[in-house]
Amino acid sequence: MRTTVGIIGAGPAGLLLARLLHRAGIDSVVLESRDRAYVEQRQRAGILEQGTVDVLRAAGAGERMDREGLRHDGIELRYAGQRHRVDFPALTGGRSVTVYAQTEVCKDLIALQLKEGGPLLFGAEALAVEEAEGDRPRVRFRYEGVEGVLDCDYVVGCDGSWGVARKAIPAELTRVFERTYPFGWLGILADVPPSHDELVYARHDRGFALLSMRSPSVSRLYLQVPEGTDAEAWSDEEIWAELERRFETDDDWRLERGPITQKSVTPMRSHVHEPMRYGRLFLAGDAAHIVPPTGAKGLNLAVGDVVTFARALTYKKETGSEELLDGYSATCLRRVWQAERFSYDMTTLLHRAPDATPFEDRLQLARLERIVSSRAAETDLAEGYTGFAL
Amino acid sequence: MRTTVGIIGAGPAGLLLARLLHRAGIDSVVLESRDRAYVEQRQRAGILEQGTVDVLRAAGAGERMDREGLRHDGIELRYAGQRHRVDFPALTGGRSVTVYAQTEVCKDLIALQLKEGGPLLFGAEALAVEEAEGDRPRVRFRYEGVEGVLDCDYVVGCDGSWGVARKAIPAELTRVFERTYPFGWLGILADVPPSHDELVYARHDRGFALLSMRSPSVSRLYLQVPEGTDAEAWSDEEIWAELERRFETDDDWRLERGPITQKSVTPMRSHVHEPMRYGRLFLAGDAAHIVPPTGAKGLNLAVGDVVTFARALTYKKETGSEELLDGYSATCLRRVWQAERFSYDMTTLLHRAPDATPFEDRLQLARLERIVSSRAAETDLAEGYTGFAL
Repeated sequence: MRTTVGIIGAGPAGLLLARLLHRAGIDSVVLESRDRAYVEQRQRAGILEQGTVDVLRAAGAGERMDREGLRHDGIELRYAGQRHRVDFPALTGGRSVTVYAQTEVCKDLIALQLKEGGPLLFGAEALAVEEAEGDRPRVRFRYEGVEGVLDCDYVVGCDGSWGVARKAIPAELTRVFERTYPFGWLGILADVPPSHDELVYARHDRGFALLSMRSPSVSRLYLQVPEGTDAEAWSDEEIWAELERRFETDDDWRLERGPITQKSVTPMRSHVHEPMRYGRLFLAGDAAHIVPPTGAKGLNLAVGDVVTFARALTYKKETGSEELLDGYSATCLRRVWQAERFSYDMTTLLHRAPDATPFEDRLQLARLERIVSSRAAETDLAEGYTGFAL
Repeated sequence: MRTTVGIIGAGPAGLLLARLLHRAGIDSVVLESRDRAYVEQRQRAGILEQGTVDVLRAAGAGERMDREGLRHDGIELRYAGQRHRVDFPALTGGRSVTVYAQTEVCKDLIALQLKEGGPLLFGAEALAVEEAEGDRPRVRFRYEGVEGVLDCDYVVGCDGSWGVARKAIPAELTRVFERTYPFGWLGILADVPPSHDELVYARHDRGFALLSMRSPSVSRLYLQVPEGTDAEAWSDEEIWAELERRFETDDDWRLERGPITQKSVTPMRSHVHEPMRYGRLFLAGDAAHIVPPTGAKGLNLAVGDVVTFARALTYKKETGSEELLDGYSATCLRRVWQAERFSYDMTTLLHRAPDATPFEDRLQLARLERIVSSRAAETDLAEGYTGFAL
């Protein structure tokens, strides 16, 4: 099998890349180890930055998002019983975010790809990327029990942090930057309308909590829990009681309960793999970088990467120049590190580290006080949340 | 001896307080354990916030400052060979800072106090504050070999972090917040015009460096050094060579050398003592809080404290209400914690921690990139540097 761009992984990065290349008249093949149902149901991010929304629209993948997505013009910061709204459009000159789950983005892109794009093979497990340093890289893969080879001009690894793409870059050329956190998120889906119409980020002495939503009738809620917590160790009653405590306010706001339909624990880490390019192999999304979920940046960073790649390859096609392809890693990493910084800051602003000193606790409250009392500090946060320039 | 306000310590906090009370028609006595020459020569801070300048002027202590102080409308951030100027007035609606050494502030205030203020006793060592919880607190002190008692309505401890005032607050009512840093500053005074007309804050892989000045002909320069460094272990040649390395730029800027006239190492720590009031004893300045010098906040915080006290006592005198005196600690601490936050952030932004991970190094560079590319982030810094509202 032969194609211009071999794409490993049909998460949002790989699917959007196939779509962008198709619109630019560049053919590709997408290999995905899982089946379609798995990809369409894997619960992940749900906040689309303004720039991501714009890209999906421009790619012709925005129709259902525009109909069903929830535009959010702010978030609420909650601490010490106080509630403070951060007004995104007022602070950023009109920017906002859209709540539309990653599962839905994937469904839309899969439907488009199967209808009018190039090959998208589910159950096709990439085994290795070979000859990345030459002109004809290839992907070895297994599909329906048989090994095959995909010959490409370029390979883009959109196969996440445990995928094979990253492994094709020699260790001696690689630098890894990492940070782990001594806590994770216990996340639930519940069949109850969200108790607030925007996301609520709560800093509490007992730990962080986040109120989010998947739709007007489905709430998504998170609790900071110690690293290594087993989701099943928490009863539904315990989860609701703890959420109520952490979201407590000085006014009469209250949290509505409902049936919990899903329960899982997400670990938290920061990870960057440099460089993001080796010869004709390019890494995109989680294959190159992981952020803790607090800043809602993971999906949006992946979108930035594939937009950068599609733009660079289109430029090559139109001009013959490899300048943008050569600059891929540096261009992406500037944005990646801003998102890493933002995600780290949002995480440390709101979570209680088990080993935090009293000085660090006070510092955290002083940071929150600063954000709610300085337009500059609040704007800095709003700009970061709604997204860094593509 | 009897007075309304007993002031322990003739640093800038104690001296300014005596001045402010004198102007408000409230009598005070200042006890200072050191002699006048020592107080007038003790090298400390040199950056006055806009608010501090305004207060000194309003107190009639601004004449020489206005003549000899250097108004600075910005600082330079330097990293990775790049130079970036932060323009204070443009970012903060006209605010700036003034370079005028603490020694000079003290000289001016001492001269005024001796000319027209209440008693200012040098060589008067405070031994203890007693009966702070009652209506008639007193300070026991030793002066010219004889023990005496100063009976007061109020006592203000401006006697620094090792003074006796703080010790009069019962430990069980006290909370201490602390952070130490694994580095200090090797500071020099040199008889050479400053190589740049504004302060230069340099982040370098070898550590932080700061270019500052005492006057148009005297440079004040600092190098980050490991905790516990002996200043004498550094030869003049080594100091200049290291300064040159850390201030290196991609353009043709160069550092001028000159004779080093003074050399010392300053440790770095953050420290807050809560509450700042116990009965009729009030803590001000270093007696209650220490900041690392990076943000140039120490002297300015002390000024904020004594302004708050003088205002509160004047209010009591005029209205009979103790409301502002009762709020003293909470009012000061709001500002203190913003300054602690700012000083911590400036310190961690620019210094290299010996145990910093590669992730933290990249985060530091991403923070600098953010400041130089976002007006909001840069404004946040400029507001903090020029000072929080009194």
